[in-house]
Amino acid sequence: MKKILGALVIVMTAGQFGMSSVLDSEEAFSQLMPIPQEVKVGDGRYRIEKNFTVAVSGNPDERIYGAASRFLRRLDNRTGLFLPQDYVEPDEELESVGLEIVVARAGEVTLGEDESYVLEIGTTSVLLKSETDLGAMHGLETLLQLLSTDEDGYYFPVSKIADSPRFPWRGLMIDAARHFMPMDVIKRNLDGMAAVKMNVMHWHLTEDQGFRVECKSYPLLHELGSDGMYYTHEQIKEIVQYAADRGIRVYPEFDVPGHATAWLVGHPELGSKPGPYEIERGWGIFQPTLDPTNEKVYTVLDAVFSEMAPLFPDPYFHIGGDEVEGHHWEEAEHIQAFMKENDLKDKYALQAYFNQRILKILTKLDKKMIGWDEILHPAMPKNIMIHSWRGRDSMVSAAKDGYASILSNGYYIDLMQPASDHYLVDPLPSDIELNYEERERVYGGEATMWSEHVTTETVDGRIWPRTAAIAERLWSAEEVRDVDDMYRRLDVIAVQLEELGLTHIKNRGMMMRRLTRGADIRPLHVLADVVEPLKIYQRNADLIYRSHSPYTLLPDVAGADAKDARRFNKMVDAYLKTGHKADEGAIRSMLEMWAANHAKMEVLAADSPALRETLPLSEALRDLALSGLNALDGKSQNSNSVIERAKAPVARVELQVVDAVEKLINK
Amino acid sequence: MKKILGALVIVMTAGQFGMSSVLDSEEAFSQLMPIPQEVKVGDGRYRIEKNFTVAVSGNPDERIYGAASRFLRRLDNRTGLFLPQDYVEPDEELESVGLEIVVARAGEVTLGEDESYVLEIGTTSVLLKSETDLGAMHGLETLLQLLSTDEDGYYFPVSKIADSPRFPWRGLMIDAARHFMPMDVIKRNLDGMAAVKMNVMHWHLTEDQGFRVECKSYPLLHELGSDGMYYTHEQIKEIVQYAADRGIRVYPEFDVPGHATAWLVGHPELGSKPGPYEIERGWGIFQPTLDPTNEKVYTVLDAVFSEMAPLFPDPYFHIGGDEVEGHHWEEAEHIQAFMKENDLKDKYALQAYFNQRILKILTKLDKKMIGWDEILHPAMPKNIMIHSWRGRDSMVSAAKDGYASILSNGYYIDLMQPASDHYLVDPLPSDIELNYEERERVYGGEATMWSEHVTTETVDGRIWPRTAAIAERLWSAEEVRDVDDMYRRLDVIAVQLEELGLTHIKNRGMMMRRLTRGADIRPLHVLADVVEPLKIYQRNADLIYRSHSPYTLLPDVAGADAKDARRFNKMVDAYLKTGHKADEGAIRSMLEMWAANHAKMEVLAADSPALRETLPLSEALRDLALSGLNALDGKSQNSNSVIERAKAPVARVELQVVDAVEKLINK
Repeated sequence: MKKILGALVIVMTAGQFGMSSVLDSEEAFSQLMPIPQEVKVGDGRYRIEKNFTVAVSGNPDERIYGAASRFLRRLDNRTGLFLPQDYVEPDEELESVGLEIVVARAGEVTLGEDESYVLEIGTTSVLLKSETDLGAMHGLETLLQLLSTDEDGYYFPVSKIADSPRFPWRGLMIDAARHFMPMDVIKRNLDGMAAVKMNVMHWHLTEDQGFRVECKSYPLLHELGSDGMYYTHEQIKEIVQYAADRGIRVYPEFDVPGHATAWLVGHPELGSKPGPYEIERGWGIFQPTLDPTNEKVYTVLDAVFSEMAPLFPDPYFHIGGDEVEGHHWEEAEHIQAFMKENDLKDKYALQAYFNQRILKILTKLDKKMIGWDEILHPAMPKNIMIHSWRGRDSMVSAAKDGYASILSNGYYIDLMQPASDHYLVDPLPSDIELNYEERERVYGGEATMWSEHVTTETVDGRIWPRTAAIAERLWSAEEVRDVDDMYRRLDVIAVQLEELGLTHIKNRGMMMRRLTRGADIRPLHVLADVVEPLKIYQRNADLIYRSHSPYTLLPDVAGADAKDARRFNKMVDAYLKTGHKADEGAIRSMLEMWAANHAKMEVLAADSPALRETLPLSEALRDLALSGLNALDGKSQNSNSVIERAKAPVARVELQVVDAVEKLINK
Repeated sequence: MKKILGALVIVMTAGQFGMSSVLDSEEAFSQLMPIPQEVKVGDGRYRIEKNFTVAVSGNPDERIYGAASRFLRRLDNRTGLFLPQDYVEPDEELESVGLEIVVARAGEVTLGEDESYVLEIGTTSVLLKSETDLGAMHGLETLLQLLSTDEDGYYFPVSKIADSPRFPWRGLMIDAARHFMPMDVIKRNLDGMAAVKMNVMHWHLTEDQGFRVECKSYPLLHELGSDGMYYTHEQIKEIVQYAADRGIRVYPEFDVPGHATAWLVGHPELGSKPGPYEIERGWGIFQPTLDPTNEKVYTVLDAVFSEMAPLFPDPYFHIGGDEVEGHHWEEAEHIQAFMKENDLKDKYALQAYFNQRILKILTKLDKKMIGWDEILHPAMPKNIMIHSWRGRDSMVSAAKDGYASILSNGYYIDLMQPASDHYLVDPLPSDIELNYEERERVYGGEATMWSEHVTTETVDGRIWPRTAAIAERLWSAEEVRDVDDMYRRLDVIAVQLEELGLTHIKNRGMMMRRLTRGADIRPLHVLADVVEPLKIYQRNADLIYRSHSPYTLLPDVAGADAKDARRFNKMVDAYLKTGHKADEGAIRSMLEMWAANHAKMEVLAADSPALRETLPLSEALRDLALSGLNALDGKSQNSNSVIERAKAPVARVELQVVDAVEKLINK
């Protein structure tokens, strides 16, 4: 028995699954993300030859043929083997089969469907078995991740993998309302989700800043509420189909009664105040709110939801319901009178009344209501699902109260926290105070890509690769929680995700070239790799961002996991523990690089005014690095002011190496 | 008077347009591409402040508001100024106006429309005047290219630019049939075209490998002829609108009667032979051909063209007509009988008969026929347009015969020739043997992006930046033909084009990361920057490519203008002329880099079998570099075999520095 994957036990068996090549194979298995439930490492290699083919048998949904064909192309694109098979098709006559996929039945793209698979890699064939094509598609992603190389070429390591998800709801919410996200952004992110075995896209479609769906029943909604940026019915269908082809459910969010300014631009009569209303261009919590006392509101919502419901076959329908402050309700006499008349004692009761009316509409449409924490109210029945964003407590109390729920608190990737933070958030840690029945009500979670500070240029980089860590949390065993190992594998996955068209790596260079006006980007790269954007909305502190602000500057180039900083901080910790000279050398060379970088940044900034605001930061890094070098040299110094300056945010970013240098100084 | 832009004369005037800052301003003007017809350089700078706004007056088409808004966002994204104006809208009340756009009338997106503009940049305001909004949009691109920086920030240099195109037809053909090109590819390339003032997209929609439009009258055409990859009517309309918003005409090509395999998959009865037919997966000239003797062919074409005509408002309609070898016609008895009966003496006469029938359909639909050289036949009337691809001669003889024409011979960007080759091809050089009237019949030209060896990953890199050089040829004065200056400006434009989402730079890194499996790409970069893919279809010589081949290897990463090779070759020429020590140093350091690179490539290839085929090349480069270093050191050597080996193609690419090193050795 041998532990090689995080906390997972790798079972070694006799016979074909012998010991000899395990060490070589480890590399292959240590690339997997999310980590499968069970891996038996065998002996030998399945060689991928130029005649490698794929066949499907059983009773699958036809989507498996598309998935298998895409698998072939990705394999061929990575290996350059010029594989002969154009498409994987039913009833093909193949001379020999490399990978055989056997699927028992067509999967339904719906909550709770069987997603398990078993992958058996032998030296002469690969067998992928699953109950449904959804499981088979997960298996194909695992197989691609296992692609390995040696002196003879490409191979899959002999092994047997039995895998299935820990949670049935593994989602990504994309806010396409605050910043509109065009079709290609949605599609490539669906491909990214499939690659890490996520299975739900929650599509946030309406906001103060935009109503993003064509509405045939009330066309003023999208005509006046979207600046022309919305999805047509045809496009919605295209995305739903694209997702279903990848085993991904898609369900919409129409956020009501708050976050509703965009609805009111075309239909001010639905508002709690007379209007007129304009599309909101700023960020924050705004007061425009649907009027729960106005029967026309329900007429419109009935029509709109009835129109939208068939576009989304999934039974879940998100009504938002968050952040209703109720100021407009307080200020409207007729609403106050209505509340008194109907014995609704506060805004919460009024919202619950509103939600009950909405629930009737959704029930009629065969939809299940899901909404943010705030829809939880004693007046609501138990058949709604709570989407917990404000904290784990609300999820726990929902489960205790008998509500189904999913967790997003802890998975807010827009807050620009490192992957490790999200990775360690478990929806159902073993020590959670829920009994078996209550635990069963927690279906999983969703990463939430709110798009205030995200554009089509940066959105992939905000989602990936961090979301792969969340995907692993929701798929793999609870014990899989080695942060260092997760980061190591994240680097591997990040590059693989690029083949799907995702721009999380390549757009950084593009943005830097724009900033340097085509000059050498390396000095800016050095700086960007040790800073992170201000977290948790602090970037608004010294500068008010709006829809059309330039999200093209250093905080937008910088990521949530400053790569060099992470490396440096680990090296310093290791060095302080062991005092090894080799570690000192590596630390010294990074410090020297930073010390020399400021002069280069000055040259860049001379031609690029947009970079000038970063110079104090670059200078602070230089001085910090010089202090660190002094410390390594054993020179005495007073570096308090240097440290303090290096800790101060500049240009909406923060240096991430200050603590480590401070440790060096204080050692 | 002062020449600063290629061969153009920059006029200096008195008063505001004084002399003092001309030298500073030169840099700004030397960024322009295409070079305007007339530039008067003035004295002073228009400062772009945080409150910069844009206003429009006159009687423009509403598209100018979208264009002006996009201009603002691009300006803001480059400068990071957080400009306050969300959208440029009619009748806005602005406190002060930075740029005023005055448009006399709405432009029609049609051949020959007025595209001129005048840009007057003063120290306190910028005025852009044009007859139509099409001209104004060109002016906005010029203004963005003029964005300059100094110690005080961003500015536009005081100047007066009067500009208009040399040719009215400045096109890019995109072959979306051989490799399908999704919506986002088409859109971002339309943006690229607009940035360099091109005004026609020719959309090649049918081929042996695919029928790429939804066809409601004969749905089997797209259902069986496209592998599911086609544009819906809605998508065609979306693209046509998107293009029109950028002043770009879009016209389709339905290539008949050859290149028609995909038509015959769903409708074999239209073929000259009985069928069945399958979608073609290979590249080349294929025999399946529509049967000109079959009345159903004309019934179907009438229905299909009648369905397609309204989707494309442009009057031109391309019927292809190229490469009809006629073997299937020869082999079909009924066709031979028909020819005899109708006195059609050869395949050319039969094709002319076919074209005459098609012409009737198109005339009925108010469309003008355009087709490749081969449609030129004595039997055809003079109101068709000839698209010249086989040579300038056919264009000249068409013009003499009274036919309108455009030129693509010399603009075949799929042949992977350097930008300089295309740049120097002039549709109407002064010495052309055409009289005034005949010259007037030459409307311009089109770059042709045939997509055999191009995928969605590589297409932008094949089109850009080279197509910008062709755009300049078609816009600027004939005398603008300084190749070095073109290359210098191409580097500037290449980076600017990235902001439109084009992937020509950033996908190279992505593709290299896939090839190195996430390892350091620098050694591969060094190699890729001195090689070019085999030109003119030679890459098929040792390896047969097909639709699904992996276009992910070194010949796909390498571009048509190997950057380091170009630089090195210029340095060697300069050094051999002057013998300067500084040049020698630069040459030496490049040679040393190449000499050291092979060992690094070996390390990369150890983990990446796909790279192993490039090792002989990398080794040849090392040996070549060592010979070059020996030559610089004055050592005697016999380097014939080294040179010979370095000249041999490897892995479908060729080294581009062999001649230069040979010159060093033989000096």
